Amino acid sequence: MHDKISFIQTAIQQGEFAKIREEIIQLNVVDIAQLLDELEEEQTLILFRLLPKEISAEVFSYISTEQQQFIIESITDKEIKNIIDNLFMDDTVDILEEMPANVVKRILKQVSSERRNLINQFLRYPENSAGSLMTIEYIDLKKEMTVDQALKHIKKVGVDGETIDICYVMDQNRKLEGIIPLRKLILNDGDTVIEEIMETSIISINTHMDQEEISNLFRKYDLLAMPVVDQENRLVGIITIDDIIDIIELENTEDFHVMAAMEPSEEEYLKTSVARLARNRIVWLLILMVSATFTGGIIRKYDDILSSMVALAVYIPMLMDSAGNSGSQSATMIIRGLALGEVSMKDMAKVAWKELRVGLIVGLTLASVNFTRIYFFDGVGVWVAATVSISLLFTIILAKLVGGSLPIIAKKLRLDPAIMAGPLITTLVDAVALMIYFQLASWLLNL
Amino acid sequence: MHDKISFIQTAIQQGEFAKIREEIIQLNVVDIAQLLDELEEEQTLILFRLLPKEISAEVFSYISTEQQQFIIESITDKEIKNIIDNLFMDDTVDILEEMPANVVKRILKQVSSERRNLINQFLRYPENSAGSLMTIEYIDLKKEMTVDQALKHIKKVGVDGETIDICYVMDQNRKLEGIIPLRKLILNDGDTVIEEIMETSIISINTHMDQEEISNLFRKYDLLAMPVVDQENRLVGIITIDDIIDIIELENTEDFHVMAAMEPSEEEYLKTSVARLARNRIVWLLILMVSATFTGGIIRKYDDILSSMVALAVYIPMLMDSAGNSGSQSATMIIRGLALGEVSMKDMAKVAWKELRVGLIVGLTLASVNFTRIYFFDGVGVWVAATVSISLLFTIILAKLVGGSLPIIAKKLRLDPAIMAGPLITTLVDAVALMIYFQLASWLLNL
Repeated sequence: MHDKISFIQTAIQQGEFAKIREEIIQLNVVDIAQLLDELEEEQTLILFRLLPKEISAEVFSYISTEQQQFIIESITDKEIKNIIDNLFMDDTVDILEEMPANVVKRILKQVSSERRNLINQFLRYPENSAGSLMTIEYIDLKKEMTVDQALKHIKKVGVDGETIDICYVMDQNRKLEGIIPLRKLILNDGDTVIEEIMETSIISINTHMDQEEISNLFRKYDLLAMPVVDQENRLVGIITIDDIIDIIELENTEDFHVMAAMEPSEEEYLKTSVARLARNRIVWLLILMVSATFTGGIIRKYDDILSSMVALAVYIPMLMDSAGNSGSQSATMIIRGLALGEVSMKDMAKVAWKELRVGLIVGLTLASVNFTRIYFFDGVGVWVAATVSISLLFTIILAKLVGGSLPIIAKKLRLDPAIMAGPLITTLVDAVALMIYFQLASWLLNL
Repeated sequence: MHDKISFIQTAIQQGEFAKIREEIIQLNVVDIAQLLDELEEEQTLILFRLLPKEISAEVFSYISTEQQQFIIESITDKEIKNIIDNLFMDDTVDILEEMPANVVKRILKQVSSERRNLINQFLRYPENSAGSLMTIEYIDLKKEMTVDQALKHIKKVGVDGETIDICYVMDQNRKLEGIIPLRKLILNDGDTVIEEIMETSIISINTHMDQEEISNLFRKYDLLAMPVVDQENRLVGIITIDDIIDIIELENTEDFHVMAAMEPSEEEYLKTSVARLARNRIVWLLILMVSATFTGGIIRKYDDILSSMVALAVYIPMLMDSAGNSGSQSATMIIRGLALGEVSMKDMAKVAWKELRVGLIVGLTLASVNFTRIYFFDGVGVWVAATVSISLLFTIILAKLVGGSLPIIAKKLRLDPAIMAGPLITTLVDAVALMIYFQLASWLLNL
């Protein structure tokens, strides 16, 4: 990569444009986009203008938003028109969503009023819905066509794009009647009628379905593309699997971030500014810091017990950590199950019952090990050992129950279940752990 | 789904097999597999035998391992042969890897010795490597062919499968020379020579590449399939995107589990037994419980300080939680960045420098808020407030540095970076937090 960049920089300075062109067309469009991203702005513009017309729109769709904006602002209206006319609808919408209003206005000026209306319609679909992900570059066939007629039609209208791998059969009202992969057309004789070979058990999605649900459907059925239909089952677009992969990783990153108590961010770590990283983290840390005050308040409430036996403080970190970890384990299992569609809201009772039993096994094991360890190795009295160990047992069972239930409750309240993981659970069960601990101490140790 | 199951159960009891068949062929193979999974074993067998021959192998590849084994053990050799002959190589390998040895032996008996050798070769590739994921059902073309010859060849050999959407051009030594999507064949005239239209900038993977790296390549280049080549650049198989989606979710689930201190599990939560859930969680909880003992040891070491001022204990939970949360935030960002290939091992210094600055901003903010809160609201003395707040500042900076670096160090040591998240970081920085706290208290408060 570094070799490529310095080669191009030198070639641009020496005006050897033919040489650059020759080198560039050997590369994958994604790699060309990466090159454009790493060059200085002026050089980016020169290189972009050297690209063959057929690939410049595709390369454009892969470069960073900043470079896209810079290029749009630097090129002529005619060049903009060439890019926009050759972009897929879903990429067009993605790009427009990121651009400032004046740039959007200039871009939309270059397209036909018909396409402009369509773009505006796509921009109105809610974010993360099927409508905002779909594209319109698909092939439509009629069921009366023969295979030969269909192939001729495809050759006429299918300019390009992976989206012709699957074709859609519609009636005159654009209602979806069947789908047929291109390969099936090839494998059948030319005079076979489409209706006889099209698939009619169609998995389709509607325009408002959420992207998480969509990606679960893609995963379940091993699909490469899915048709998007409106309320009347009319085909309005298709979603292809390459976009789904990006969405899956974005959704996962979001869950990871939320579970670690951060504002989710779509930017790459190394490209995110320090100020932004700090901002994404501070809010939750403040909330959790203040929440931990309540845990401290419990210690204050029992400080006469602690004064009369400071040794009890030694076991506070162990109790707090074990409680938090137990709760996070359960919460993570359930959050993940909910995201993958393996656990649903109606499973609340099943989850609680399962976690209760897991908590019992785990709690008894940890409590026994702990009792043995602190009684024999720390040399504390049997009642202190019992207090710590029984607290541990109850804490773990409770943490497991809370950890398993909170994500489901969050989902019922239409909150993001991931928010109920790690730090929040930890803070919550910490307080409970200390309360149990001091209460037991006051009973068992007569403090 | 429940309607379907009871319909089939009744129909089986009444012997209305034609009716079942009629109903079944309307369904997607994945849904049929799900039905088979939910029926009683005897009924599963009846329904499986009612399936049209063309789809029974595909349905078989989607049902659960237990049902697969039950079916294999209940059907005739001829029926086994029909399934195995119609399975893709990657599905065959997946199934055989899960079956007990005697079942594997019986299955392998049904296939030709040539195919058996091939299967055995595939079974020897390391788990999670390209070799274990690839399949061999691809179309190979020669560059001298015309489009018409190529299409004729495809129609002859391409029985079925999404894997013909992309064809591979090889020379006589099976070296990969180009790739050409089926759609490009359709869009070109019949007398065009393949060599003129094939793509030669090929992104390929070698048989030992790890699945995480492979899925990052698929994501980067928006690919639907990738060729797998050996050391001599000979084509040995292909990997298709539908398998990649499953891998991405599996890798993510694994990271989620490891980060929450559990043994990663591929089973769905509701289908996992209580004993297994408990076993997956206990080991790490025990390790972390014992580690937290060291944190307790720090309290014991400073118990004279604590005795002379029990009020200090009130701030222990807040310090521990803030330290743990700050560290987890950083660790999660880096673990995710490493998994997506956005951060690499050589970025260690960049990460540390970034985290240092983020830690400074976050730490100063939290420390100021904390100072104000406990000085004015808790009414502690100015030196106690200073002790707690300065401890908080240093702890957060340290936690961010440790959280950002440990995952990269883990990766350098060829450990799973995810292991360095949440609980382990928390335990580590807890101890540091308390050490700083008590040391500062002894200096500033003269205890």
